[in-house]
Amino acid sequence: MNTPGSTTVAHLGERRVIADIRARLPAPPPWLHLGIGDDAAVAAPERGAFEILTTDGLVEGVHFDRRFSSPYDIGWKALAVNISDVAAMGGSPRLALLSLALPSELPASDLDSLMDGFLDLARSSGVTLAGGNITKSSGPLMVDVTVTGSVRPRRVLTRAGARPGDEIYVTGSPGAAAAGLGWLRGESTGPERTPEDPGLAACVLRYRRPEPRGRIGMLAGRNRAASACIDLSDGLADGIRQIAEASGVGAVIDAAALPISAAARKWFEQSGLDPVVSALAGGDDYELLLAVPRRARGRFATVQRQAGTVPLTRIGEITEARELTVRRGDRDEPLPSGFVHF
Amino acid sequence: MNTPGSTTVAHLGERRVIADIRARLPAPPPWLHLGIGDDAAVAAPERGAFEILTTDGLVEGVHFDRRFSSPYDIGWKALAVNISDVAAMGGSPRLALLSLALPSELPASDLDSLMDGFLDLARSSGVTLAGGNITKSSGPLMVDVTVTGSVRPRRVLTRAGARPGDEIYVTGSPGAAAAGLGWLRGESTGPERTPEDPGLAACVLRYRRPEPRGRIGMLAGRNRAASACIDLSDGLADGIRQIAEASGVGAVIDAAALPISAAARKWFEQSGLDPVVSALAGGDDYELLLAVPRRARGRFATVQRQAGTVPLTRIGEITEARELTVRRGDRDEPLPSGFVHF
Repeated sequence: MNTPGSTTVAHLGERRVIADIRARLPAPPPWLHLGIGDDAAVAAPERGAFEILTTDGLVEGVHFDRRFSSPYDIGWKALAVNISDVAAMGGSPRLALLSLALPSELPASDLDSLMDGFLDLARSSGVTLAGGNITKSSGPLMVDVTVTGSVRPRRVLTRAGARPGDEIYVTGSPGAAAAGLGWLRGESTGPERTPEDPGLAACVLRYRRPEPRGRIGMLAGRNRAASACIDLSDGLADGIRQIAEASGVGAVIDAAALPISAAARKWFEQSGLDPVVSALAGGDDYELLLAVPRRARGRFATVQRQAGTVPLTRIGEITEARELTVRRGDRDEPLPSGFVHF
Repeated sequence: MNTPGSTTVAHLGERRVIADIRARLPAPPPWLHLGIGDDAAVAAPERGAFEILTTDGLVEGVHFDRRFSSPYDIGWKALAVNISDVAAMGGSPRLALLSLALPSELPASDLDSLMDGFLDLARSSGVTLAGGNITKSSGPLMVDVTVTGSVRPRRVLTRAGARPGDEIYVTGSPGAAAAGLGWLRGESTGPERTPEDPGLAACVLRYRRPEPRGRIGMLAGRNRAASACIDLSDGLADGIRQIAEASGVGAVIDAAALPISAAARKWFEQSGLDPVVSALAGGDDYELLLAVPRRARGRFATVQRQAGTVPLTRIGEITEARELTVRRGDRDEPLPSGFVHF
């Protein structure tokens, strides 16, 4: 789309905006019988699979700040958080619906960049944009996304299956997004600013543009390698608490085992924050937390081998006693509270 | 839920709000394996059917005004507009995902009423609330809904199948919602105010709480009684234009045949508006517009018989000439523009 920099979405109008988006979509997969352009999309379900359905949205001023995140980041993240939910169920994402509420003064070029971010992640994740809705917002920019996915009936990962003795694993480096957001709040002067330290720059990128752990969730489901799984949208402590509550169990987390990145640790310490508490309580990680039964260790090793470069770290164990404990050396502390969105 | 009148949704918090909603849901159908409470919902698709997917939202200050619509109306309408889209594809709605962005100061009792409206329509339409998302809004109240439905593969109604000679039918009384909204803008002093004239009160109700034409859309699809179908979210003129463009045809509408209600006609005339133009251009009707081939007349008569009390009126004909004309006596006028949301 070529529009002058001063053109707003209101200048273009709904029809033109939708036409521009349609023109950028790749050829639809054979199972999508009707995509954007009718009253609704029509798709053939995947044979023999259950359907996973999730919806999650980003609201300006609540989930993002246009001083910290570019339109590209916002489009990317709005899809990423939903793919992360599908991964946490052990499934593969399939199609997305995108619902946009746009302030009239939003530059058309910003919408273009937002769609770039959304469609780049859709392409690399195998997700087809099948429909949506565009309306004016009387206030903040809002991006609501629905993603469906598929999973074999006996391969669904819920939060409720963890049993005492299961080992607790986490993907990536929890706390990275919190450190990145902390740096943005203190130091950033714009959505393109990035810290010089490459480790801290990776934290900022994790906050702005989380890479959902789609392959690991799908592999854990397919290999029946986990008894429970959740994505860490509201932080690691919240994820542990949710799995423990749903499964009727407790957990002990080993503080020394938490894979906090050196840059995040350094940033927390410089800011006078406890790195362990910060990594447990910080939100926006979109990592996966998995409970792995001892009898599934072999299958989990297969997942680890196939997961590529994403680290999977054992951070604790599910317990029968319904307490949530962080073990720091010979001291036991209660698990801190999670991130609160609302 | 029993909460004092001064309690806001922010006081309750996300967990409590979700728990209160879950507690009100009826028993899930057997095909819903996981509803609200995990990372995503899991459903078994309907055997041998295609899935219809649509998303549509209401934004405060754009689609509704809390002076004109009660929270109950808003919850109802947010679901109704999506069921209407599924009906326009010839399908039956199945499940819904509800995404709410709530201002912190919203009274908890308003959210309760909003859910009443949503769940009452869900129950009467056979829709299961399977999941969703609740977040804070930094501005207006927003209600985004995704609805899925099912339709047999050869029963899908698109916008693109109309052929010259097909008769054009519309459900209900187009223009009613526009007359109702007009009255609200001029006369209303609150969301409970209703005009004394029962005909005009029906127009206000059509605006506040549209009854989606789910049964008629489903019957038209199942009986292969229509060559094209669309719902009139953006008005009758827009619907005619969309079907004509998608099908590569034109249309002649007979102004005298338009089933404008006596109360709406009177209200338009008293307001100095042309009733025909107003009924064609007004938005928010959520009626269905259908093109009926002559060879399908018998099947369409079956739909009319089974449709119950909802009127189905022949208002014109599809033409080969790609013009859009309104015939008023012996005068031909171009079709007015539709309602513009954006």
